[in-house]
Amino acid sequence: MQDLGKQMKALIAQLYPICRSITGDGVRETLRILTQEIPLQIREVPSGTQVFDWTIPREWNIRDAWIKDSAGARLVDFRELSLHVVSYSGPIRQRMTFEELRPHLFTLPSHPDWVPYRTSYYTDNWGFCLSENQLARFREKEAYDVCIDSSLKEGYLTYGECLVPGKEPNEFLISSHICHPALANDNLSGTAVAIELFKCLTSKTNRYSYRFLFAPGSIGAITWLALNEALLPRILHGLVLTCIGDESPVTYKRSRAGDAEIDRAFVHVLTYKSGGNKVIDFSPYGYDERQYNSPGIRLPVGCMMRAVHGTFPEYHTSADNLDFINERSLTNSLETLSEVIELIESNHTYINNRPKGEPQLGRRGLYRSPGAGETQLAMLWVLNLSDGSHSLLDIAERAKLPFTQIKQAAGALAVTDLLTVKSP
Amino acid sequence: MQDLGKQMKALIAQLYPICRSITGDGVRETLRILTQEIPLQIREVPSGTQVFDWTIPREWNIRDAWIKDSAGARLVDFRELSLHVVSYSGPIRQRMTFEELRPHLFTLPSHPDWVPYRTSYYTDNWGFCLSENQLARFREKEAYDVCIDSSLKEGYLTYGECLVPGKEPNEFLISSHICHPALANDNLSGTAVAIELFKCLTSKTNRYSYRFLFAPGSIGAITWLALNEALLPRILHGLVLTCIGDESPVTYKRSRAGDAEIDRAFVHVLTYKSGGNKVIDFSPYGYDERQYNSPGIRLPVGCMMRAVHGTFPEYHTSADNLDFINERSLTNSLETLSEVIELIESNHTYINNRPKGEPQLGRRGLYRSPGAGETQLAMLWVLNLSDGSHSLLDIAERAKLPFTQIKQAAGALAVTDLLTVKSP
Amino acid sequence: MQDLGKQMKALIAQLYPICRSITGDGVRETLRILTQEIPLQIREVPSGTQVFDWTIPREWNIRDAWIKDSAGARLVDFRELSLHVVSYSGPIRQRMTFEELRPHLFTLPSHPDWVPYRTSYYTDNWGFCLSENQLARFREKEAYDVCIDSSLKEGYLTYGECLVPGKEPNEFLISSHICHPALANDNLSGTAVAIELFKCLTSKTNRYSYRFLFAPGSIGAITWLALNEALLPRILHGLVLTCIGDESPVTYKRSRAGDAEIDRAFVHVLTYKSGGNKVIDFSPYGYDERQYNSPGIRLPVGCMMRAVHGTFPEYHTSADNLDFINERSLTNSLETLSEVIELIESNHTYINNRPKGEPQLGRRGLYRSPGAGETQLAMLWVLNLSDGSHSLLDIAERAKLPFTQIKQAAGALAVTDLLTVKSP
Repeated sequence: MQDLGKQMKALIAQLYPICRSITGDGVRETLRILTQEIPLQIREVPSGTQVFDWTIPREWNIRDAWIKDSAGARLVDFRELSLHVVSYSGPIRQRMTFEELRPHLFTLPSHPDWVPYRTSYYTDNWGFCLSENQLARFREKEAYDVCIDSSLKEGYLTYGECLVPGKEPNEFLISSHICHPALANDNLSGTAVAIELFKCLTSKTNRYSYRFLFAPGSIGAITWLALNEALLPRILHGLVLTCIGDESPVTYKRSRAGDAEIDRAFVHVLTYKSGGNKVIDFSPYGYDERQYNSPGIRLPVGCMMRAVHGTFPEYHTSADNLDFINERSLTNSLETLSEVIELIESNHTYINNRPKGEPQLGRRGLYRSPGAGETQLAMLWVLNLSDGSHSLLDIAERAKLPFTQIKQAAGALAVTDLLTVKSP
Repeated sequence: MQDLGKQMKALIAQLYPICRSITGDGVRETLRILTQEIPLQIREVPSGTQVFDWTIPREWNIRDAWIKDSAGARLVDFRELSLHVVSYSGPIRQRMTFEELRPHLFTLPSHPDWVPYRTSYYTDNWGFCLSENQLARFREKEAYDVCIDSSLKEGYLTYGECLVPGKEPNEFLISSHICHPALANDNLSGTAVAIELFKCLTSKTNRYSYRFLFAPGSIGAITWLALNEALLPRILHGLVLTCIGDESPVTYKRSRAGDAEIDRAFVHVLTYKSGGNKVIDFSPYGYDERQYNSPGIRLPVGCMMRAVHGTFPEYHTSADNLDFINERSLTNSLETLSEVIELIESNHTYINNRPKGEPQLGRRGLYRSPGAGETQLAMLWVLNLSDGSHSLLDIAERAKLPFTQIKQAAGALAVTDLLTVKSP
Repeated sequence: MQDLGKQMKALIAQLYPICRSITGDGVRETLRILTQEIPLQIREVPSGTQVFDWTIPREWNIRDAWIKDSAGARLVDFRELSLHVVSYSGPIRQRMTFEELRPHLFTLPSHPDWVPYRTSYYTDNWGFCLSENQLARFREKEAYDVCIDSSLKEGYLTYGECLVPGKEPNEFLISSHICHPALANDNLSGTAVAIELFKCLTSKTNRYSYRFLFAPGSIGAITWLALNEALLPRILHGLVLTCIGDESPVTYKRSRAGDAEIDRAFVHVLTYKSGGNKVIDFSPYGYDERQYNSPGIRLPVGCMMRAVHGTFPEYHTSADNLDFINERSLTNSLETLSEVIELIESNHTYINNRPKGEPQLGRRGLYRSPGAGETQLAMLWVLNLSDGSHSLLDIAERAKLPFTQIKQAAGALAVTDLLTVKSP
């Protein structure tokens, strides 16, 4: 797994400098790099397309941007950090006084050397983000040359998706947003973990089909939903991955329903892990789980996080950089995710074929077999509750035993005549 | 509101000296004074009328009562305090020894200068209530002249009611008992607050129709229920008001169902108020909520109190006088009540007309509008849960936000195309 | 009750020396003694009979067993303690070295003077159980004469059952296992308490029919279930009695359903008892509640214990002897059991015949009658909730009053016209 951590970190480092937004070449370049990792299909949806309550906006591209002082020195330089330009800033090339410029400068007074991240998607505007320290170098009386070499034109919204077909057509959705520029945890971490998860899943046979979506936040998820309404009933489970590369313990945010199978599975896995993991209820603030859990969509989609958006100082600042994330956390996120998926893959409902009294385990070699230990109790629980209305997770919850133990017991019983998977 | 406090206290002071019982001129005089405040309709139900399991008793009236010593001095005088006579005492005029008199004298040894309140409604008896200090002035060997100038004759049980018609014929019942003599908190406080609430409600247009009932305790409520069975299905909410003028924090007692809309509304309002307010479960001890919540009636009626009957020393004694209540508490009770009613009036279920994904708030001027603050989150909650099966109170409870904020958010959304009230 | 304690202890002392197993004359002799107490019917089920997933095994009988040293001295002697032979040991008569003998000797190193209890029901084997102290007397180089004079032949599995017919054909099952040899708490205590309970029940008229089952553990219960499937729907309540003679407080283990009437009744009775009683959830480890609660049987059967199997050091050792149990605990177990049964017998659902408003208790002599005290509140609760969907136990739980008080109140109301038992 250590190698996977390195690979994920490396992919993040490769993607970090690209200036992403909700449309444009930054998204395209990001997806192109991902296609080198997995067989992603790229979709281009034209500006002006109606997607539910929204319209795909004009495409934004940017080549350069700077503020120069009268001596021609670049005080703020887009090429150094893509965060320096407010995302979706319209083009401008003008000399102006500090007084005129000031309303277009955004800083973070509480952290004088950090640059904030700002967007202006649906209102025509322009601006620069810079550190307080940079701002201190400006002079009241001086004039500045301002340049944003950007364009806002009819174009496309771009996203990528990819399916790992399973034995069932029913799907598990993994969704990650790709609209943030130089922010590592939010959300290159989610993208990188999703890529490795995809590779893990393709290396084996799965029960469910896994759909991976890499799309711009909000408008991207809405676009995908609008274009794929017919397949939504197939989605039985889903997760939004976001901010999962930092040092915080895992936080799982439940779906709107609150007790979907994905909710119970994730909570179960966290229950048997140490390290201060946390479960929070659904709320309509956050990432694309907002869209998936909207009242007309209602997909059972939870959200996996480590640091929770809006609650850590580095959130939406230049401090969410490559140093803010680490290989160990990325690896741990991938492992946790894999355990949750493994649980859901195995969460069958079985039928006890000898339901009257306990069956004679002894003559099937299952009675206190060496090393059976706790498995004996787990077997009895599986037999007792496999009446067709309890899944293995139901049984694990009631038995207060780890799912893995219940699953192992069911496996041992299923090779005899005692236990059969309930046909759907 | 300060003026309202004064007015309520003044009304209580005016009613306080009247000797009320479950029938008789004391009730009539009380209701007559109330008709000067609100357009009350007075009902007279003849003695002998069968009302469910009960029969309206004979009417009781009293003109005077006293105990004189041999020197002719009045040791106990009804004209000083109406509590001095056991309510429903039959007439008597007789000289008797202290020994003969003693079984008819009731005191409160734990509070030597307080006079207890006693009744003898359904058994023929007579008696005097006095303080321990008064009792100490009696002498074992002396003879006393005893007079109760009362009558028990065929007559009427009297109550008053009044309707504030609303947009809907469905009703909200406000019930207050008016059978207690010189007791201020129990229950002139409830009566006075009800009168002011009536005035508040008539000053505006209401969704529900509000029925105010001023009736003697138990037999009065039973009589009203028996005579009005046909309209009971219209009563969707109700409150008994009692002991709401004292200094204690508010106690709300739930209806028998426990989770009626009135229960949830009252609990919600108290949750966002400071001051040690309390919620208790229904029990069949108390006031007329006992009748409204009987198994053959089952109206969703809770009970609003401050001090809880039977648990404060002044309960049913002469110490429940005008000093025991105050304008601030009366006002606070009226305000709390108004908030609860306001909540129920506004507790609509809305439909999100753009339920697929989040709608674009920006182009409707609702995205992070200045001063929106918490309203943004409240709006998202309203949109997320307005699927036709959640009222605003459901949403406030799930969002853990005050109803007022949720209501404000729904209001802002409802002026756009996004939200519509669900038709019933 | 003190006499009952003595009788129960005496019966246990009488049964203690008999070498019981899951079949054989030890069980027969035990049941024969019980027939001197109650009119037990003895059933004999032939070896080879198929009972659900099991087959009745060959019958095991033993006459003598010992290990002698070369001097002819008995180092281990079955006649001293029946635990000395592993139950179901096949016959053997042989001289052997200590090395050959050692794998057949079982001790309890943690308690050097206790003898463990071992069985080998469904695998051909033989062995001796002895204390560590006894083992210390064996010498490495010496040869030993080993004798187990036992037989394993086609025969019968024997159990006893007995019915106390009630007014209803619906049954309450009391089940106790009788396969353990010289173990007093596990389970002669259960047997002795069941015998006394039988006598108590026959001395009065009961609502339910009570079926007492004395059968070998597991295979006995399974056999009885297999032979009596047709009557299972009649069993509305049931209890397994086990380990109820020791000093621990009572532990009640719920049925698989968890909220069966027997569960709620037992929990209610324990709630109003002092002494650290405990309630635990169902799990498929334990005694014959495992069989009764299997998914194809699902009888509402709980388990009454004091010390919990597997958690006390004396469990399945020679220390579970006559000193480990006492008359006081046996008596307390019988009393507790009787209270639970009394509750279930009385747990009727009543109908309030005057459900509109409260009825007038006064004219029926039920209003604050002397000594009524808490009964007044209990009466109001009974009237309020007797709408046909609440049993007396439902009412006691909601009122947070002891069942006995609720029952007394219902009794007082039922002699008037106010309350009638709901016909089933």
